[in-house]
Amino acid sequence: MSEPRKFPPESDVEKLFDDVNNRGRWGPDDELGTLNYITSQKRVAAAGLVKAGRALSIARDLNTSQSPNNPSPVRHTMCYQAHEPIGAIDEIALGMHGFTLTHLDAIAHVYRGQDVYNGRNASVVATPSGLTYCDILAQKDGIFTRGVLLNIARVRGVPWMAPDQGVFAADLDAAERLQRIRVESGDAIFVYTGLQKRELTEGPENLGQRVGIMPDAIRWMHEREIAVYSGDCVDAFPNPYSLRYAIYFHAVALAAMGLILLDIPALEPLVEICDAMGRSEFLLTMAPLRIKGGTGSPVNPIALF
Amino acid sequence: MSEPRKFPPESDVEKLFDDVNNRGRWGPDDELGTLNYITSQKRVAAAGLVKAGRALSIARDLNTSQSPNNPSPVRHTMCYQAHEPIGAIDEIALGMHGFTLTHLDAIAHVYRGQDVYNGRNASVVATPSGLTYCDILAQKDGIFTRGVLLNIARVRGVPWMAPDQGVFAADLDAAERLQRIRVESGDAIFVYTGLQKRELTEGPENLGQRVGIMPDAIRWMHEREIAVYSGDCVDAFPNPYSLRYAIYFHAVALAAMGLILLDIPALEPLVEICDAMGRSEFLLTMAPLRIKGGTGSPVNPIALF
Amino acid sequence: MSEPRKFPPESDVEKLFDDVNNRGRWGPDDELGTLNYITSQKRVAAAGLVKAGRALSIARDLNTSQSPNNPSPVRHTMCYQAHEPIGAIDEIALGMHGFTLTHLDAIAHVYRGQDVYNGRNASVVATPSGLTYCDILAQKDGIFTRGVLLNIARVRGVPWMAPDQGVFAADLDAAERLQRIRVESGDAIFVYTGLQKRELTEGPENLGQRVGIMPDAIRWMHEREIAVYSGDCVDAFPNPYSLRYAIYFHAVALAAMGLILLDIPALEPLVEICDAMGRSEFLLTMAPLRIKGGTGSPVNPIALF
Amino acid sequence: MSEPRKFPPESDVEKLFDDVNNRGRWGPDDELGTLNYITSQKRVAAAGLVKAGRALSIARDLNTSQSPNNPSPVRHTMCYQAHEPIGAIDEIALGMHGFTLTHLDAIAHVYRGQDVYNGRNASVVATPSGLTYCDILAQKDGIFTRGVLLNIARVRGVPWMAPDQGVFAADLDAAERLQRIRVESGDAIFVYTGLQKRELTEGPENLGQRVGIMPDAIRWMHEREIAVYSGDCVDAFPNPYSLRYAIYFHAVALAAMGLILLDIPALEPLVEICDAMGRSEFLLTMAPLRIKGGTGSPVNPIALF
Repeated sequence: MSEPRKFPPESDVEKLFDDVNNRGRWGPDDELGTLNYITSQKRVAAAGLVKAGRALSIARDLNTSQSPNNPSPVRHTMCYQAHEPIGAIDEIALGMHGFTLTHLDAIAHVYRGQDVYNGRNASVVATPSGLTYCDILAQKDGIFTRGVLLNIARVRGVPWMAPDQGVFAADLDAAERLQRIRVESGDAIFVYTGLQKRELTEGPENLGQRVGIMPDAIRWMHEREIAVYSGDCVDAFPNPYSLRYAIYFHAVALAAMGLILLDIPALEPLVEICDAMGRSEFLLTMAPLRIKGGTGSPVNPIALF
Repeated sequence: MSEPRKFPPESDVEKLFDDVNNRGRWGPDDELGTLNYITSQKRVAAAGLVKAGRALSIARDLNTSQSPNNPSPVRHTMCYQAHEPIGAIDEIALGMHGFTLTHLDAIAHVYRGQDVYNGRNASVVATPSGLTYCDILAQKDGIFTRGVLLNIARVRGVPWMAPDQGVFAADLDAAERLQRIRVESGDAIFVYTGLQKRELTEGPENLGQRVGIMPDAIRWMHEREIAVYSGDCVDAFPNPYSLRYAIYFHAVALAAMGLILLDIPALEPLVEICDAMGRSEFLLTMAPLRIKGGTGSPVNPIALF
Repeated sequence: MSEPRKFPPESDVEKLFDDVNNRGRWGPDDELGTLNYITSQKRVAAAGLVKAGRALSIARDLNTSQSPNNPSPVRHTMCYQAHEPIGAIDEIALGMHGFTLTHLDAIAHVYRGQDVYNGRNASVVATPSGLTYCDILAQKDGIFTRGVLLNIARVRGVPWMAPDQGVFAADLDAAERLQRIRVESGDAIFVYTGLQKRELTEGPENLGQRVGIMPDAIRWMHEREIAVYSGDCVDAFPNPYSLRYAIYFHAVALAAMGLILLDIPALEPLVEICDAMGRSEFLLTMAPLRIKGGTGSPVNPIALF
Repeated sequence: MSEPRKFPPESDVEKLFDDVNNRGRWGPDDELGTLNYITSQKRVAAAGLVKAGRALSIARDLNTSQSPNNPSPVRHTMCYQAHEPIGAIDEIALGMHGFTLTHLDAIAHVYRGQDVYNGRNASVVATPSGLTYCDILAQKDGIFTRGVLLNIARVRGVPWMAPDQGVFAADLDAAERLQRIRVESGDAIFVYTGLQKRELTEGPENLGQRVGIMPDAIRWMHEREIAVYSGDCVDAFPNPYSLRYAIYFHAVALAAMGLILLDIPALEPLVEICDAMGRSEFLLTMAPLRIKGGTGSPVNPIALF
């Protein structure tokens, strides 16, 4: 059994926040953040990854069942049309975040204190009628880039990581070596720790005790210039820091780096297809709904092989 | 000024329904309909269209303003988090269809009488808890294929078509000739009649008087084996037929052909970029939300050049 | 142990529907149904029942927890106001009927076949934008009348009735005798069978096996000219009749009599206070929300003693 | 033309807040506020006001039309039931406050700074899952008391008051004299300034310029021990004070007095019936929906004569 993770002091996280801060990097009005790494050339190259012509959704179904991990489920209503209906219509209502919906975060979704990406202040950005800066609409033209799966459970030699573990920079390096691939500027990475497999055996994840991305791995992501982070682990719980860093990974990624986060992907089928095809890379395509002022959007990301 | 369109008798539409019917073509349990035309090879070839690396959304913003053409607008609510917020969260509620939301239809969304695609019956398929067959979830792996813009307004030599006009097979043929492109099996076509340009001048479209796809154009689509239809015109209004064909294009396309329909795209920016780049074809990517039982889904389709 | 209930043949229910039909009784355009029994004099007399000045809610809390008996729970959302909030705001979303919400039915809520109260037809009355006749708005001036508790469990000498039992006219007569009260024109009756007490012991009610109001008790209600029916039992399940009478009590009460139904009251505290005060009668006050076209409304009925 | 209103300095409002503060008056855990004035005797006496047996709703219809004064309208959806429907069902979604919905406020709905009624602090009381103290559920047993209409427009001799006017204590005194009635402990008062009549002529109210209850009238209400305030005027706009008193009447009434507020009543029909019957007093009955944690509730108050 491995040791539980150890966290650096909060002062290190403060320093990290400054070190990886992309404020001003793409101009004072930039709302794309790390999507700027996805250049035209990157897109063309990513398109070249479609060799077998196979497509796979890596989203979960919208979850309409209430449970402790899904207290406010999606509401799906079939609507009245007529007594001689010519078709069927319906409505949905959903919250953007939480632990069951596959979704993209708007860059201004999470703050560090009141700090929002690119030097903005939350009290100005977040209003009752929506975000006025770095809302999800900023990502309207979608994400089309190389996706890379990094199988950390395999690196560790376990079917799944225990909830008191963390993903360190060394794990990411090791995954690259094991998989013989190198993460490059503009990539979307998918970090796999085996969570859904664990849940099949041990039951629904305890939200108070979660595998986390460790601070040095955030620095790694900055240095590698990734455009999108996704994975079955994000912020460690219990949170070792103050309210300022209550969800430190989201806070640093969004408010400092402007790093695009794809939360709650469905990774098991992705691992299976990657293993079956002997590949770690694929074309990733996804686009948020065009919600002006929105803090995020449900999405259905597609991996193409 | 051109003559108003003339419609064939309803008996011709009945015959059309049978002639273009794909019932059983892909097996008795098929739920993909014309998405079957998008083969692995088609996907690989479509990826090859990404030459400049440019991406463009062809969705409209979710519309939260009530108007006669948008009686039940999207509801966007910023939600309570805490008195010392660490971020911003929100919810949306929306209906799947209508005239302002860019959305994909589930194949079982519209019936011909009680007839649903592939020999199913609406009274069994459409239940209070959702569609049990050919729901939007059937399209979960998304659409990745060649998109082709067909500029019918240009064929006609007008900035926009008048609301009493129709798009005939001959128009589609003429667009191919003019644009020097040929629609092929598995393509997604985007038929442009200049509607949004007309609305800028003449005000919001009168929903009771709409340009329509004419029956012979539906037959053309069947023969060409298109996978997806999209455009700024769909069913003609006023409707010339009985309740059985109240929206005849949707009825034939969905209930007979299993043709995937992308309603309410934003075509003006697509026309502009096509003109600017001298292209009529592009890679189209989109994927519906994974709504089990859903009759459709909001989407944000992306065109790649 | 008593015998399970026996139902008369459906032909008897057809006859009952005609016998108790109030069609035309209060004019061809009447939308009040049995609320017509509540005359000005009845209201004045009912006010006279307020002797002790005690008030008691007989509604249940809105239920936001999903369960088999509450598949689509009320959704309660705290909303965003500002970073320096001056107060708290929220939203609710709810369906009007079901088994957990205390609610009033609109008279046109349930049909017999396509028959709606006072000779109307459902295909005309029920439209996608709401009921055009006998909606809940028709009851906008509220209900202010005498309420009478009829304790059938006590008549039967049991703490609660078993789910295969029924409430017959003879039970209502027996309750009157035992409680020394007589139900009169314009009264609201509350029939108690001990359901909530049973649920405390045996768990949530099985919706497929429910105590029911028997057809002869419906006739009794008609003869006594009650204005409002409420109780912890309504339609018997499993349903012994065809789809035409799938919920026969609702069908006869609403579509024939125009009898106002208050579903899912909270009767335990009412029984307690009645027992404690040695009373079976009280002033009942309640009023639906003014929902134009609505099929019902959540309410909070108040009993005054 | 009369002079525009003049406001006392904010220091006077601070003093008012302390002078009228009911903190501790009904115990440290009281959640009823001024409803404590409605004693059993008060209820019995109020019941005696029902002499003619007439009932009148003083709510507005739920408003589903979007407009500048109703930016987030009530959403009413007819729901899918079956292809052979046996009835009609629907859903509503609504926000609790605003300028078009007749609603009761929870006492903790508005703060003075972070101060909530009875010495509580907003950061503890208002949580993402609802109010933990003085929510609308605290008022679950409803309001049953004497209502008194005070016609200030008539006192002033105008059909309606201009938007730069205020209602002073002297106006309330004058109305009592003119109408020969005296407001007493436990009463619900309805202050009428002719707003809806003005809107018929001048168009929808400008929310930035509203008739207001003046601070000395708040003191009057405290001295008279009213239980409920309602009226077609509340807080004056533009607001003369700091954010601490952004809506000073709500802040003082709710956070200091625990005074129950019934916002957005429909007063025109009430004025008409009072005039027709030569009465200024009536029995008022209403009860909020039982929303645990709720900040308010839509209601349909009924006046009985």
